[in-house]
Amino acid sequence: MKLYTRKAIEQQDQRQRTAFVNSIWGFKSVSLIGTQSAEGLTNLAIFSQVVHLGASPALVGIIVRPPEAERHTYENMKASGWFTINHISADIVEQAHQTSARYLREESEFNKTGLTAIYSTNVNAPYVAECRLRIGCRYDGEHVITQNNTVLVIGRVEEVWVDETAVDTDGFVDLERIGTLTCSGLDSYHSTQRIARFSYAKPNQPLIKI
Amino acid sequence: MKLYTRKAIEQQDQRQRTAFVNSIWGFKSVSLIGTQSAEGLTNLAIFSQVVHLGASPALVGIIVRPPEAERHTYENMKASGWFTINHISADIVEQAHQTSARYLREESEFNKTGLTAIYSTNVNAPYVAECRLRIGCRYDGEHVITQNNTVLVIGRVEEVWVDETAVDTDGFVDLERIGTLTCSGLDSYHSTQRIARFSYAKPNQPLIKI
Repeated sequence: MKLYTRKAIEQQDQRQRTAFVNSIWGFKSVSLIGTQSAEGLTNLAIFSQVVHLGASPALVGIIVRPPEAERHTYENMKASGWFTINHISADIVEQAHQTSARYLREESEFNKTGLTAIYSTNVNAPYVAECRLRIGCRYDGEHVITQNNTVLVIGRVEEVWVDETAVDTDGFVDLERIGTLTCSGLDSYHSTQRIARFSYAKPNQPLIKI
Repeated sequence: MKLYTRKAIEQQDQRQRTAFVNSIWGFKSVSLIGTQSAEGLTNLAIFSQVVHLGASPALVGIIVRPPEAERHTYENMKASGWFTINHISADIVEQAHQTSARYLREESEFNKTGLTAIYSTNVNAPYVAECRLRIGCRYDGEHVITQNNTVLVIGRVEEVWVDETAVDTDGFVDLERIGTLTCSGLDSYHSTQRIARFSYAKPNQPLIKI
């Protein structure tokens, strides 16, 4: 095992450090966030800093970069009060990655990548038609992380669209059935293969595969 | 595609809703968090709500349950000022899942599951010897998420131990080389298979596989 001290990490060159630190937290959720401005200009951006906050009510947290960066998604979330989260599968992974290019504010990543915007009557933000799991969220406040001026945006789930074949009777959504990918680092995409589901763990009881 | 409205989700029974909402954010990082109390009692717990906050300085966020729950890990993080994050591979996945059982405060999940605590001189928390990527973090404050009283704990990376073979010259850590798993929902564990790494995206330039 090799040791990287804090000092050694600080002394890596910037691109190396960014790649390294983005890699060490394991595989990440990766999805497309759809928004629109007050004028109705659509935006689509790939995010890997999405985290479950709770089930009752259903809440999500999204980490957004500091204010020095241009943040079309964040501005749209606040201006419109809405955003969508859309799962990425292998057939659209190149288009999904391409949304991270620095397009101008007046350019839509939907047009630029050829992904298709569709709407639901209840949600003031575009979904991605090609995605087989889509979540409509209402912007519900934020926390500034003062250590580095990133922002934790809170979203409240208003609706979920999902390919019905993926939802088991116990509520579990089998993401492999709809081809959802995971990512690592800044640019690596992976499919998955189930090892096991395990029963609810209790002290002094063997686990059962379910 | 099937629509689940907010109301339909609220009306699911509690276990179904918990499974459903925990599933919809995609594949998640999953790791073991090692801590110890002021008295030196060790604790080990599996977490899937770990999120990258930034690379300079290297910061992580951990979502911790509300204060009604018994939270040995959280109490230890605050009391000692330290915690470790340890990647899970297939050979220890059952032991890792078993750490989620409700053991008593005075019981150590290391003893109960047979995983091995090891220490580094710089970090006041136990690592898991079986893990091939281990991160030592200092507790660096927290934010209460008032919507549901969960807590976002901020950690500052003090050191990283990693199997040297996994680190590429550009800083990227190839997690598949060390067998790191991902999880979905509350209880499902998955191995991964790389689809591609893509070049840094720029407007009007085709992506290159790297």
